[in-house]
Amino acid sequence: MSKSMESTVIPLRWIGDRGQGHLEMLDQRKLPGEEVWIAMKSPKAVADGIRDMVIRGAPAIGIAAAFGVALGMRNFAHDPMTSIESELSRLVEQFAATRPTAVNLRWALQRCQKVANDFDGLLDELVDALFDEAHAILDEDRANNLELGRHGSALFDEPVQVLTHCNTGGLATGGYGTALGIIRCLDDEGKLKRVWIDETRPYLQGARLTTWECLQDDIEGTLITDSMAAHLMKNGEVDAVITGTDRVAANGDVANKIGTYSLAVLCKSHGIPLYVASPLSTIDLDTPSGAEIPIEERSRDEVATIGDTTIVPASFDVAHPAFDVTPAELVTAIVTEVGVVEPPYEENLQRLFDL
Amino acid sequence: MSKSMESTVIPLRWIGDRGQGHLEMLDQRKLPGEEVWIAMKSPKAVADGIRDMVIRGAPAIGIAAAFGVALGMRNFAHDPMTSIESELSRLVEQFAATRPTAVNLRWALQRCQKVANDFDGLLDELVDALFDEAHAILDEDRANNLELGRHGSALFDEPVQVLTHCNTGGLATGGYGTALGIIRCLDDEGKLKRVWIDETRPYLQGARLTTWECLQDDIEGTLITDSMAAHLMKNGEVDAVITGTDRVAANGDVANKIGTYSLAVLCKSHGIPLYVASPLSTIDLDTPSGAEIPIEERSRDEVATIGDTTIVPASFDVAHPAFDVTPAELVTAIVTEVGVVEPPYEENLQRLFDL
Repeated sequence: MSKSMESTVIPLRWIGDRGQGHLEMLDQRKLPGEEVWIAMKSPKAVADGIRDMVIRGAPAIGIAAAFGVALGMRNFAHDPMTSIESELSRLVEQFAATRPTAVNLRWALQRCQKVANDFDGLLDELVDALFDEAHAILDEDRANNLELGRHGSALFDEPVQVLTHCNTGGLATGGYGTALGIIRCLDDEGKLKRVWIDETRPYLQGARLTTWECLQDDIEGTLITDSMAAHLMKNGEVDAVITGTDRVAANGDVANKIGTYSLAVLCKSHGIPLYVASPLSTIDLDTPSGAEIPIEERSRDEVATIGDTTIVPASFDVAHPAFDVTPAELVTAIVTEVGVVEPPYEENLQRLFDL
Repeated sequence: MSKSMESTVIPLRWIGDRGQGHLEMLDQRKLPGEEVWIAMKSPKAVADGIRDMVIRGAPAIGIAAAFGVALGMRNFAHDPMTSIESELSRLVEQFAATRPTAVNLRWALQRCQKVANDFDGLLDELVDALFDEAHAILDEDRANNLELGRHGSALFDEPVQVLTHCNTGGLATGGYGTALGIIRCLDDEGKLKRVWIDETRPYLQGARLTTWECLQDDIEGTLITDSMAAHLMKNGEVDAVITGTDRVAANGDVANKIGTYSLAVLCKSHGIPLYVASPLSTIDLDTPSGAEIPIEERSRDEVATIGDTTIVPASFDVAHPAFDVTPAELVTAIVTEVGVVEPPYEENLQRLFDL
């Protein structure tokens, strides 16, 4: 097996049996300095972990929420005042409220809800079914990413220099990654000349996480600040940009980490293709266009403070939109686990789900 | 006098008399946390201060170098082995080597050299003439910036939202600033709705210095990461981008802080004007185009470490081009102290110097 197929970078794991065990998350806030696993024994701990960025990445937070729901129902004590149905609804709502932009969270919670709706056995059996579902979401995500990576790599015949944004690797998914999965596959197949990694301010997912994953898997890359991408494009040092996404709307508009839209405009201006890696779970046909995707405004502190250093005077105003929307016309193709989707997106995305 | 005309933000000052006194620089590396002035008693201290970013900004480093040369000749002890001419040449070369991209440094050193070439008196008198020249460069720069600010502000009739990059204020010049001078003037004249300030990675001149200057002068601004500019443009929240420059070539190509070219492409794509504030001292007719401007590659550490926090694994490759070149066709106009220059730049820039 090639080096990247073996990649063991994962964002979470279940420890112990279902009755007494717990979820562990790798604390991504501490990477790359320290590898600390945090034990999560309650749904509140899991929800806080999602909200506070212990874990991030659209697919990964969907998976975490599914485990959180199973954990919550396991911990649920029969109570004459609360039905199983209402407890499950409460958990689903609690997790849905943690992060607004990524659709995978909602998608995973819908899968949990469906398991419960279809169930009329005992609570213990429901808990077991919910754990089965959480594990299935995790395992399917990893398997889908391996397929997605192959479809994406097949877009290139020659060794290429690609640029990527944020972290879309094993840490952001059930394993292997989406955009970084394509890059892993390119590397495996000897088609990766270099990967430029945007540091991805403000949260520095590129600098802290993508570099760390590349080191784990021996992929050669170079870190840049987000402001350097255009300069490299002008110098002919970028053949393609590959990003992930937090939600693809029915018309092909793409919500992703702030800075993606900037790259998309730069790609168009330099004649460079922009490929968006999106598992089917990230495509949301219920959202007609990017205009309907909520853009999360996160805290001032995530911009103003890096480690122990505050980079801006305390009283100064700071904006922090955490995502942006790239219009479909700037997206060269969307890469999924079932193949590459090209424009017209409205029609071609719908067709994927009609299969 | 309006609030901004009074702005007392300065990057350096001479302390004491010419015979025993010394230069002081405000240590910009420590802003906005601490205001520390560093005494510089030798030309080596001044040159190190320029190289190590105690002071930065194209006009400011030219001014600092002129004081450094005067200080060096004052400290020069008559020595049968070294002539005044060769000592002066040595000093000029020492300063010219500190930073390669900004042309003001070379321009200021040429002024010092000319003072020396025209002189045939005693060393003491030469030292006095060199101090006169350094003070003249400083005073002229501030006066020119006030004029430049007025010309730039006159480009706008209505209150506007402008976006700026890096620091181009009092800290980067002899006072008042270039691009930030225009913004100060807009604010004075009631024509500034808001200034968006790019944090300007990697060195964070926007986050650390421009915000601090705005606070000193009561100018309302909002800090953003460099990756947010495109998103704001798409949302109609940016009416113009105004930047400074480290060197304008004869054809109108503009070298400036890394990230400026990215903004220029985004401006064009969104139909937003890009104005470049450039004193005449920053226009270099001896450089035919941007292709001939050396781009300084600075250290890995300035990208990898922020305060005490290292944001990238120790062994990971990092690129750090500190400047980029914006082609003339993306520049709407160049604002100088003698007026606004529009395309065709080759012809119109030449005409400025023929006057």
